[in-house]
Formats: sequence, C-alpha cells, structure tokens
Amino acid sequence: MKIVRFTKDNRKSYGILKEGKIQIINGGVFDDYNLSDEVLNLDEVVLENPVNPPNIIAVGLNYQKHAEEGSQDFGKLPDAPVLFVKTTNSVIGPEQDIKLPLSAPNEVDYEAELAVIIGKKAKNIEKEEVADYILGYTCGNDVSARDCQLRIDKQWARGKSFDTFCPLGPWLETELNPDNCKIQSRLNGRVMQNSNTSNMIFSAAEIISYCSKNMTLFPGTVIMTGTPEGVGFAREEPVFLREGDLIEIEIEGIGVLKNTVIKER
Amino acid sequence: MKIVRFTKDNRKSYGILKEGKIQIINGGVFDDYNLSDEVLNLDEVVLENPVNPPNIIAVGLNYQKHAEEGSQDFGKLPDAPVLFVKTTNSVIGPEQDIKLPLSAPNEVDYEAELAVIIGKKAKNIEKEEVADYILGYTCGNDVSARDCQLRIDKQWARGKSFDTFCPLGPWLETELNPDNCKIQSRLNGRVMQNSNTSNMIFSAAEIISYCSKNMTLFPGTVIMTGTPEGVGFAREEPVFLREGDLIEIEIEGIGVLKNTVIKER
Repeated sequence: MKIVRFTKDNRKSYGILKEGKIQIINGGVFDDYNLSDEVLNLDEVVLENPVNPPNIIAVGLNYQKHAEEGSQDFGKLPDAPVLFVKTTNSVIGPEQDIKLPLSAPNEVDYEAELAVIIGKKAKNIEKEEVADYILGYTCGNDVSARDCQLRIDKQWARGKSFDTFCPLGPWLETELNPDNCKIQSRLNGRVMQNSNTSNMIFSAAEIISYCSKNMTLFPGTVIMTGTPEGVGFAREEPVFLREGDLIEIEIEGIGVLKNTVIKER
Repeated sequence: MKIVRFTKDNRKSYGILKEGKIQIINGGVFDDYNLSDEVLNLDEVVLENPVNPPNIIAVGLNYQKHAEEGSQDFGKLPDAPVLFVKTTNSVIGPEQDIKLPLSAPNEVDYEAELAVIIGKKAKNIEKEEVADYILGYTCGNDVSARDCQLRIDKQWARGKSFDTFCPLGPWLETELNPDNCKIQSRLNGRVMQNSNTSNMIFSAAEIISYCSKNMTLFPGTVIMTGTPEGVGFAREEPVFLREGDLIEIEIEGIGVLKNTVIKER
C-alpha cells in the first residue's frame, strides 16, 4: 500500500494512493485512522515530504563498495552501524528544490538511500520484532556538503544538515522487502549509483534494532540506511550538484524521488 | 523573567515564576500569549523540561581550557564553532533521572553548558540581531558516553544521544547576559567545573548566527554552547557517573539543574 502526504487547496492531508487516485485519510497515520469518502486524482495535488520527523538518524558506510570508495579512513568495514544525525530542517518533499547553501555551495553531493519511517515508539527491540514498528519505506537522498563533512569540520553534522539536504518521497510503501530492492540514482538522466539493498552490510532490521538499543525511536523517526558506491566526490572525475541539475533516486517497489537543484539566494 | 514548564493535575503548562509563585500562561510561549488569573505555588507542581525541541545543536571545544584538556586531537583551537547534534529523545527535565544506558553504562560523563532556546524562526541572522530570536536561557547538561564518543564510534552522535542525555532546566531566564555568567557543575556536592561563560571561544551570539547561516533554526531549537574544563574523562583520576550520584549544573542568573543517576533497566 502506498501512503501519500500532499497539499490540496492549502490543506495538508494523508491519503492512500492506488492507480492514480488518492483516497483521503482522516487525520494522521501514526494512530488508527479511517478513510474518508473523498477521492482525488494524483495529478491534482502537490506531493509533500511523507513525514515531519522528530529525528533523522543516518548510517554511514553501509555498502561495502561505498565504504571502500572514499578516503583511506573508510577502508576498514565497521563492526556496528556508523550512526550520525541530520537535523530536521533538512527535510523536503518530492519535486522541491535542493538548494546549494550560500556557505558551502561547491561540493554538494547526492546519496541514494532507502529511508525507513518508524510507525510506533520503539526501544530495545530485536531485529525479528522490527517489522511491527515500521510504518513504511521511501526514497531518501542524503545530500552532503563534502567540503564541510570531510575537510572543514570535525563532525559530519553540519555538512549533512543544511536546509533541503534530506529529500524524501515520493510516498511511503508499507509492503516492501527492504533486503532486496534495486536502488539507483540518476543525475540528469545518467545512472550514477546502481545497486541493490541486498548489498547492505547491516540490514534495515539490524540498523533499526541497533538504533532502538541506543535511543528511543519516536513515531515518524526517519532512518536513512546508507548509500551504495557511485557518489560524486569519490569518482575518478568528481561530480558535484550544480544549479539546474535534476537528481533522481529510484528504489524498486517504491518509485522515483525527483529534485532539481538551485542556488540558495 | 523566569518561564517554567510544569505538570499539575496531569496537565502540562507554561507559567511565569516570581518569588515562589507561578502565574499560568494560556497556551504556548512561542507566539503572543496572555496570562491567566491562575496562580500556583512552585512547590505544588512538578517541573518539566522547558521545551520539546525540534533539534538540539551543540558546540564542542568552546572553552579553551576544555579544548586543551582532552586528547591531542583537541590541541588546536577551532576556526569556527564545532557543531554536532543530539537527538531529541535525549531531553529530560529537572530532577528527572539520568540513566546509564544498558549498551554503554561505564563512561558516562557530565558537561555543564549554557543552553539557549530559540524563540522564533531564524535563518541567516547576524550576531547583532541574535537577541531578537532568543526566547531564553537555561542550564544544560551535555551528558556523553565517552567510550562511544571517543573510542568506539566514528561520530559523536550516538554517545551524545542516549535517552536522558540532555537534562535541561530548571526554567528559562529571558533576561540574561550570556557573555558573563558563572557556570559550575557539582558531583555529589564536589565542584567539578567552575568557570564563566566569558571564557567561551565563540560567544552565544556568534554560535547562533553561525548556526543560522547553515540551517534554519525553528522555534524551540536548543543550542548547547559548550562546556568548560573539568569534565570527568579528562581528569587525572577519571570520574564517571555512577548509580546514586547527584549531578548539579548551576549558572549564575538562572538557577540549579539537579539530576540523579540510575542504571537503565
């Protein structure tokens, strides 16, 4: 089932998407909800980021070939998921603009990621229990200012947290096998990353169990599960996002998240 | 003026504290608000964390002697504020328990910090404008699992983000000069940190301006401005928090934030 969040006539709502039609949900999606009789066409609404998360927890170096492609530092595979945090101001929805920040416009990079949305409060759960706590899955782009992340700052936090640096969407898919989905990024149509979530070092369930053993995951928490090889900074000819670019993240079984790039002004 | 957030008869409210009496505020404190006629005694309410922040942005190595006391890595003073993020599950209020996490109970450390609460949405503001965007100041304890932060993990995020690792309180003070306040931590009555916010490398206003040039600060955002020398892990005889400890953070002009320590069970 696909759950969309959208704006229509200045009102934000959730709905169930099926064959191009949206049946509106009364209220939120984190408690029991019911469906209204109101049905809209997908092409008459503006899609929004599927959640406003209380926290965004991300995992670095979770695909072996990506862990190897960066600097020497990344050579050794991690023993446990490498957690970092993106601040919530970074979230945007599908077809919204990624802004190259005034303070760090030159080395902005894409990262295709499977994003998991927590559906109910989770603490100290085992990986076998994780499915009960997941609302759904969506495409995420862990946009990163590499100069800040890798050279200027001691911590990744700022380089991962600029406004618009966490595109999510286009909707939530509730019935996905997160361990076997093709995942791809395309920059102006050119395939940049092309892998499968089966190549993750830690599975989505392992990551969520690990996170829950370290912090309470509130409903709406976004877990970004890491990116495969092919990011811009690590290429033989480095590629960074430029004004006018179109960056697409596609995950099999979910859909395509599209965002264009502009300069912050 | 002191703004308290508290629970009375299962209802959470804000109020103005004056001479041991609380005048209840109708609604929130981030918009225009008015005062009700209802007055309570401070000793008949339970104080709560003064805000539920959308983000907690923290600064490392912001007092010279603390920047020097840690490892060799910390020897060079930073050119810009060293930002990191604590997740919002870490917040607790005054007199609530700090829990030694099951997954990292052994090297939990205190850090006395002046915490600034953003009052209205701030983006790209200069340091001279910062005062207009601040709701108030409170005492913060940037509790840190040093084993995770400094040895086990690549990033500080997890070691800073366990549940209960961000005590805030006991209330907000709206009229503080943040550049000249005595700041102290006491462990079971023994003074562990004893400094003045005038020793910050980057002032509160400089930090907030810097943050606002990198990300939008939403109302309620907590900015932790760094800790002075005297933390537990860097002492000749390292000191870590143990079950039964009482840790107090006192900032001149605000008050005392008290928390006891227990084991997570």
